Amino acid sequence: MSLFITLEGPEGSGKTSAIKIVKERLEKEGYQIIMTREPGGTPISEQIRNVILNKENTAMDPRTEALLYAASRRQHLVEKVWPAVKEGKIVICDRYLDSSLSYQGYARGLGIDEILNVNMYATEGTYPNLTLLFDIEPEKGLARISANSNREVNRLDLEKLSFHKLVREGYLKLAELFPDRFVIIDASKPLEEVANNAFLAIKQRLVK
Amino acid sequence: MSLFITLEGPEGSGKTSAIKIVKERLEKEGYQIIMTREPGGTPISEQIRNVILNKENTAMDPRTEALLYAASRRQHLVEKVWPAVKEGKIVICDRYLDSSLSYQGYARGLGIDEILNVNMYATEGTYPNLTLLFDIEPEKGLARISANSNREVNRLDLEKLSFHKLVREGYLKLAELFPDRFVIIDASKPLEEVANNAFLAIKQRLVK
Repeated sequence: MSLFITLEGPEGSGKTSAIKIVKERLEKEGYQIIMTREPGGTPISEQIRNVILNKENTAMDPRTEALLYAASRRQHLVEKVWPAVKEGKIVICDRYLDSSLSYQGYARGLGIDEILNVNMYATEGTYPNLTLLFDIEPEKGLARISANSNREVNRLDLEKLSFHKLVREGYLKLAELFPDRFVIIDASKPLEEVANNAFLAIKQRLVK
Repeated sequence: MSLFITLEGPEGSGKTSAIKIVKERLEKEGYQIIMTREPGGTPISEQIRNVILNKENTAMDPRTEALLYAASRRQHLVEKVWPAVKEGKIVICDRYLDSSLSYQGYARGLGIDEILNVNMYATEGTYPNLTLLFDIEPEKGLARISANSNREVNRLDLEKLSFHKLVREGYLKLAELFPDRFVIIDASKPLEEVANNAFLAIKQRLVK
């Protein structure tokens, strides 16, 4: 059966490491997994992403940015997610709609409803079947990032702690707003436990 | 007094030639005119436009394109149109919202309401004060283009005649939908007459 799963949560939540373990376990059981993340190697989405991330573009208006994220998401969906779902695969996407809703809609104050509205146009209402929220206190997540020598600290990491607290608040509000698709994973636990909980949440959807 | 005027109509309608004459007459009367068109020299809008027009991007989905146009429009508005209007200038923009509504919303069948919705987010409801629709039968417009050796025929010119008929139908529907801001100029008339009618329509708004 096909399933569209998204991973959400801050950097430092360990979602990428956990999902690697989950993917291996699912594949051992015979499931076909497609791992992706926006812009997902689709050239058009990558060109759009380059405009968003171009450091020269300091004059970029927040709504321009929101529209560009929605455009990039649309193209990734059309070229990569929908075709894989149609083939009956399990698609796991690292960040999707809820990242825009929590980071831009809530934490940056553009409004969850407004960002949702633009994204409903972009996605034609394609919500994930399951969203795993890797929840962790910002202090702990940031401490992990700075302890992790394999990973460069990026622009978002450096935002003020208060911003990361707002992002978490936004995510938790979304989990309340969409209880049917959200599963909160306590990401402060050890990696193996986090991975196991993520695995169980996915398995539960697969046997339904 | 400030005024935000947009020019609409197909290529070959002579709107660009007519507005040059209008601009000179208005300037002679002491008005300050800013002429612009999207992306209007704003680097971010231009980068977005390059993604839209990149000939390699044949896989671009129509909704991706609509979101990119809206993003480019947003940035042009923020960086160029709003500041000029705020300074009390008369801003004349060659093509704006109604181009998206007629070409994409109506002629390409994405839906006028859907495109309007995305653009309302992008523009925060910034409608022009006045929209001059340079209306001409597609056959006549296309004949003018092929007779005009100064101008290369572009991709849109080459669309089927039936498409251009739909665009015109879309524009006329918009004029019905927004009667307060639309003035229809008969663009099949000689250039001087077209320019004079455009001038009078603008003057009427200026003395109100």
